[in-house]
Amino acid sequence: MNPTPRIPGHRFLHSPGPTRVPDEVVAAMARQPTDLADPRVPQVIEACESGLKRLLHTERAEVFFYCANGHGGWEAVIANLVGEGTQVLVPGTGHFSDNWAAQVEAYGGRALRTPYVEGRPIDPAAVEAALRADTRHRISAVFAVHTDTASGTTSDMAALRRAIDAAAHPALFVADVVASLAAAPFEMDALGVNVVMGASQKGLMLPPGLAFVAADERAMQAALANTGPRFYWDWQRRRSDLPYRKFCGTPPLAHLAGLEAALGLIALEGLANVHARHARLAQAVHAAVGCWAEGGAMHLFTTAPAARSVSVTAIEVSPGIDPEALRTVARERFQVAIAGGLGPLAGRAFRIGHLGDVNEPMILGCLAGVEAAMQVQGVAYGRGGVDAAIASLAADGNG
Amino acid sequence: MNPTPRIPGHRFLHSPGPTRVPDEVVAAMARQPTDLADPRVPQVIEACESGLKRLLHTERAEVFFYCANGHGGWEAVIANLVGEGTQVLVPGTGHFSDNWAAQVEAYGGRALRTPYVEGRPIDPAAVEAALRADTRHRISAVFAVHTDTASGTTSDMAALRRAIDAAAHPALFVADVVASLAAAPFEMDALGVNVVMGASQKGLMLPPGLAFVAADERAMQAALANTGPRFYWDWQRRRSDLPYRKFCGTPPLAHLAGLEAALGLIALEGLANVHARHARLAQAVHAAVGCWAEGGAMHLFTTAPAARSVSVTAIEVSPGIDPEALRTVARERFQVAIAGGLGPLAGRAFRIGHLGDVNEPMILGCLAGVEAAMQVQGVAYGRGGVDAAIASLAADGNG
Amino acid sequence: MNPTPRIPGHRFLHSPGPTRVPDEVVAAMARQPTDLADPRVPQVIEACESGLKRLLHTERAEVFFYCANGHGGWEAVIANLVGEGTQVLVPGTGHFSDNWAAQVEAYGGRALRTPYVEGRPIDPAAVEAALRADTRHRISAVFAVHTDTASGTTSDMAALRRAIDAAAHPALFVADVVASLAAAPFEMDALGVNVVMGASQKGLMLPPGLAFVAADERAMQAALANTGPRFYWDWQRRRSDLPYRKFCGTPPLAHLAGLEAALGLIALEGLANVHARHARLAQAVHAAVGCWAEGGAMHLFTTAPAARSVSVTAIEVSPGIDPEALRTVARERFQVAIAGGLGPLAGRAFRIGHLGDVNEPMILGCLAGVEAAMQVQGVAYGRGGVDAAIASLAADGNG
Amino acid sequence: MNPTPRIPGHRFLHSPGPTRVPDEVVAAMARQPTDLADPRVPQVIEACESGLKRLLHTERAEVFFYCANGHGGWEAVIANLVGEGTQVLVPGTGHFSDNWAAQVEAYGGRALRTPYVEGRPIDPAAVEAALRADTRHRISAVFAVHTDTASGTTSDMAALRRAIDAAAHPALFVADVVASLAAAPFEMDALGVNVVMGASQKGLMLPPGLAFVAADERAMQAALANTGPRFYWDWQRRRSDLPYRKFCGTPPLAHLAGLEAALGLIALEGLANVHARHARLAQAVHAAVGCWAEGGAMHLFTTAPAARSVSVTAIEVSPGIDPEALRTVARERFQVAIAGGLGPLAGRAFRIGHLGDVNEPMILGCLAGVEAAMQVQGVAYGRGGVDAAIASLAADGNG
Repeated sequence: MNPTPRIPGHRFLHSPGPTRVPDEVVAAMARQPTDLADPRVPQVIEACESGLKRLLHTERAEVFFYCANGHGGWEAVIANLVGEGTQVLVPGTGHFSDNWAAQVEAYGGRALRTPYVEGRPIDPAAVEAALRADTRHRISAVFAVHTDTASGTTSDMAALRRAIDAAAHPALFVADVVASLAAAPFEMDALGVNVVMGASQKGLMLPPGLAFVAADERAMQAALANTGPRFYWDWQRRRSDLPYRKFCGTPPLAHLAGLEAALGLIALEGLANVHARHARLAQAVHAAVGCWAEGGAMHLFTTAPAARSVSVTAIEVSPGIDPEALRTVARERFQVAIAGGLGPLAGRAFRIGHLGDVNEPMILGCLAGVEAAMQVQGVAYGRGGVDAAIASLAADGNG
Repeated sequence: MNPTPRIPGHRFLHSPGPTRVPDEVVAAMARQPTDLADPRVPQVIEACESGLKRLLHTERAEVFFYCANGHGGWEAVIANLVGEGTQVLVPGTGHFSDNWAAQVEAYGGRALRTPYVEGRPIDPAAVEAALRADTRHRISAVFAVHTDTASGTTSDMAALRRAIDAAAHPALFVADVVASLAAAPFEMDALGVNVVMGASQKGLMLPPGLAFVAADERAMQAALANTGPRFYWDWQRRRSDLPYRKFCGTPPLAHLAGLEAALGLIALEGLANVHARHARLAQAVHAAVGCWAEGGAMHLFTTAPAARSVSVTAIEVSPGIDPEALRTVARERFQVAIAGGLGPLAGRAFRIGHLGDVNEPMILGCLAGVEAAMQVQGVAYGRGGVDAAIASLAADGNG
Repeated sequence: MNPTPRIPGHRFLHSPGPTRVPDEVVAAMARQPTDLADPRVPQVIEACESGLKRLLHTERAEVFFYCANGHGGWEAVIANLVGEGTQVLVPGTGHFSDNWAAQVEAYGGRALRTPYVEGRPIDPAAVEAALRADTRHRISAVFAVHTDTASGTTSDMAALRRAIDAAAHPALFVADVVASLAAAPFEMDALGVNVVMGASQKGLMLPPGLAFVAADERAMQAALANTGPRFYWDWQRRRSDLPYRKFCGTPPLAHLAGLEAALGLIALEGLANVHARHARLAQAVHAAVGCWAEGGAMHLFTTAPAARSVSVTAIEVSPGIDPEALRTVARERFQVAIAGGLGPLAGRAFRIGHLGDVNEPMILGCLAGVEAAMQVQGVAYGRGGVDAAIASLAADGNG
Repeated sequence: MNPTPRIPGHRFLHSPGPTRVPDEVVAAMARQPTDLADPRVPQVIEACESGLKRLLHTERAEVFFYCANGHGGWEAVIANLVGEGTQVLVPGTGHFSDNWAAQVEAYGGRALRTPYVEGRPIDPAAVEAALRADTRHRISAVFAVHTDTASGTTSDMAALRRAIDAAAHPALFVADVVASLAAAPFEMDALGVNVVMGASQKGLMLPPGLAFVAADERAMQAALANTGPRFYWDWQRRRSDLPYRKFCGTPPLAHLAGLEAALGLIALEGLANVHARHARLAQAVHAAVGCWAEGGAMHLFTTAPAARSVSVTAIEVSPGIDPEALRTVARERFQVAIAGGLGPLAGRAFRIGHLGDVNEPMILGCLAGVEAAMQVQGVAYGRGGVDAAIASLAADGNG
């Protein structure tokens, strides 16, 4: 069926999502479906709910899974929390905060934005100022993207919590952890986050197709007060022990089986080890890109080292370099798939994903393949990038 | 991870969805994801779109795929076509017409219903009368379930078309083919259907998680006129050549790969052969249940033979027989999973699914397993059911 | 690549080997290979060795695995134990004792045979007589087939042990458990069996490709004394802790991973439950064939009920019935693959395998499919076979 | 079942066999078995036979497949061609010629050897001299290893052919292509090779478990004249159209299905492209090791560049460096499995496999992972190895 000739070997997938699906997850998803009344169905769902709660470090939130992608997850948040005229504060993180805000507005909400400065994370002071300015508490929620996949920037959720508290504002704290979950630490209850949403195809190591929302009691109350039209996304309707109701119809059995397996893999490795691995691999990538940057043709897009995501690294290139052409050579000739720039970064950047089921030689092979593509394209990159990544990994005590 | 002891062998799945996933589809879904800019992604999508159009026999409709289940597919139809106060005629087919109508109402629409008579399909005369009565053409669409999975009844779509035409009513004709597609004949353009919706986990032989809508130009215009809040479901936003826009975010790559494979299997077998096989297997089930009924404890729920679905057979049992207990014995002791009664049929019926990737000995093994369970449960069933099914299959010229 | 049109559904494999491979075994075999020095390799081998010993109920034998089929397993026994002129007593069981004897003779050995009576198991008295007659103890071993796959007959190994003991003969007791292991009880140490050989593709639920020999110290000494040419099969050379030596070259990693998984499945179900399941399903088949036989056109080949194998049932048909034509209809039209007659039974019999990863509805579907094929072929079979099988299974307390 | 904690990601397998199994082969091997009389069985076998002949570039040889590993393939050659006292000339290639010669002697044959010089291929002049010295033509065959996996050295088969011809000696020319097939060019008929043997787990990209022999008419005649004991390996007995006879028992269905798929992948890529890819990747490895060698602690074992195998590279290390400790760090900390030294090279060398289903970033990741391990182990390697490999690959016109 595939008209293109055979491409040999393991293909290196270094988009920041979808990410590689581990064999154990593939095997779990390959299991045949059961009838929906089979008692094994609620067992799998329960394992997914409790496993996800452990991953989110929450005991008080309820979990809703959706047969949907990440934008579906956003819509689930919006449909429940945003009615005509609802005000939401969306701190600027770049492409994804822009898009979430646009989606809020499509639902008739009003999205206030704090300014986004390229290469920088959310400015908590701006959030605090915006909330303080809202003396009548018209802002019902702060919608914050933890890691903006487009910019490769991770914002400080604890600082955001402190900003909300400092403003003494009752807005709900809503976090998008699509690109950070199971890669960077995140503790829902400790952060006082009221709603978290995420999706399957990044740190959770599943194919796209499953989204989730975790909502606490305050958020559930806010949703109850929202009379906007919804059915599929509606949290109240999904409050049930019956799988068919929990999912507003047929549950996505393959994805649930896969999620149970993926959560088991994370538990087996140990969440702290998973986080450490992501940090270690990100550091190796940053070391390599630091060398490349010495050639003068590119630089790490996120300026503050602490804000560089452990999931994905955005590299801004100089004018005259075509990142899309580079990607094509990397993918088609060297079997390394990297990501491009999104939104304002389109044509100005490329991105290397390093999250999910990845390890040292995958990252090293990716970096080396990108170097090969840069050579072919005549990009003036500083030499020694892979060597720097190797040294970074070899020096790491837990490697 | 599985606390229950090993259950040997192939498990017989005879719910009317989810259905068995063929090995070729499993293998396709097991392929690792690619980055979204990979040119193989639009190739797969294009294959799914064109294959689905062939299956629907439409040349004029546009196809929208959703990362969603069947209820998500309903919501996609409703969010685009139903605004506050929109009137929709929902001909009664049982549980699923009831539910679709309720979902319309959750969006602020007004669902008119024609009466549902248990065991009978849609009454075209009632539809015609309702449309004729709507002299001001306030009804914007007729939402018709082709096969109601709960009742195992298939309605005559051509008769429905004639009823709409006879009433000279401009309502859109919207068909739910979730339970009939790739099992019973359906020709969108020839029937003058404006919108079709369906889902992956029945005749399409995929796990749940993918829904679709096919909409023609009249439907697209109606959607444009609807200003209700929506983003994820919105057809206009999805009109794009970019996969990321087509799917409002990340496409469900595994399901798309699986759908391409499943459509290939249907084409390989030949759609007419697929239909004939479903008819043949359904006839064998009806023959068996006809024998069982002679024991006086049960009967085929759908009275008119022509309205009996080729996908699923509902069997109503006499008071005193517990169909849920029967299902448990069938599933847990005899490895045959059948379905229960839904809605008003809960506790009054069981159902045998016979659609998707099924063949003769699967059906015979299922029927025999159900007989074994009925023996264990002491159900007074007429003997000879499997023999009748065998004779039906052996007599069929194309077996 | 497959020129034939699509055949839908689960295909019913009721040959007595190869048998269905469970999903868990498929998944284990799908794991990528490792380098041979990986410490996980000896772990898997050790799990296979200890699991197989548990299955054979032996503590004193050594296990040798071969990358080979069952005939390779026979050759491993012969190459080690049979030199030029070595005398071996091969009690008649039918096709497989004949073939094993012929293979002995190809190695220059002399195969003495006890008479084989069609439909009957090994006659222990004839064995005892043959051994008593060998007053000079020239016979070095008794090569006994536990279950002859061709005849569907299982011989009484305990009676054979008593016969050897009664003759006070020092011959080694060598058992072929290819078709009985993990289906019928067999206890190597308790039976005083010196060598056991078997293969992967029957009760062990693996694809063909792995054979094994378990040999005790007396057998090892006998092998040492045999100077015939051999290398690959040689037990001494394989006595090593190094995987590469244990397997005389590269170990069959996929089959070993699969065997570890299969042994795990057997342990999970419980060996006694596995045996009981095989007995239960065999009884259902015998009940059905008993009904069929009333039509006068066929009968159970093995006359004594106690000697009927729990793994496979041979059915002898009357002249004029073409079992091969029946098989073709069963396989190609009804998706049920059954076996034919071997050796003297070719064209006179067909066989139904019921071993390995099978359950109730698989057997019922198989029997019903065979009935359908018999109807198509106009075979005069007694009606009610499937009903009898259902009744047998429904009556069984442990079903 | 696995007591070790989770190891994330794709594991890099760079032993020279077993090699990575492509997804398409995994999927083919996962297909359920059929009964042996199924007409699809001979179709698969025929596809394997004709595909293998195309790969070997032979029209005149017969192919015999064995359920066996490579040593079983050797034994198949020996059992058919070597009787008591048969003389065979085994040109020295290192570990594998030594072992094949030893196996010949275990069968009572007499193995003459030409001297092996470490780091060098077969010396055709020595072969010619040995054959010329055999004036009575007692030598029946020359057993030549094309690529010796232990030394990473490939010998010139055309030069060997010329040497035999120059000596005007009638010895059969027998080639072991286990480590070269589908990696380096080899043309059986053009080379006048009479017998070729190989195995599944290297260039053929299958798990271990399948061996093959291709024999021409002269070889078949020689086998006929050999009366030594054999059955399983015997070519005559396997000359049949019946699968059961072709394989001396049950065919290894999963491996055959996998081989059909693997041959299809090779054809899809194009054999010339497959060869070019292996040459390209080998060159990159050689470039890297050339850099490493500048540190003074290691060197390429094969001295003549033309004799360096495209399948595997052996690297000899200086005294004081423990290659086994290096391998353990590479595998357990950096997920890169490389091979060790065999025979006389044990403890003196490590090897990097680069054959089968491999591509550029896999090789680059492997080399980088080995560098990381060398850093951890404090090995004094010359820097810049990965850069050299990248440059080699980027410069290659067909990359």
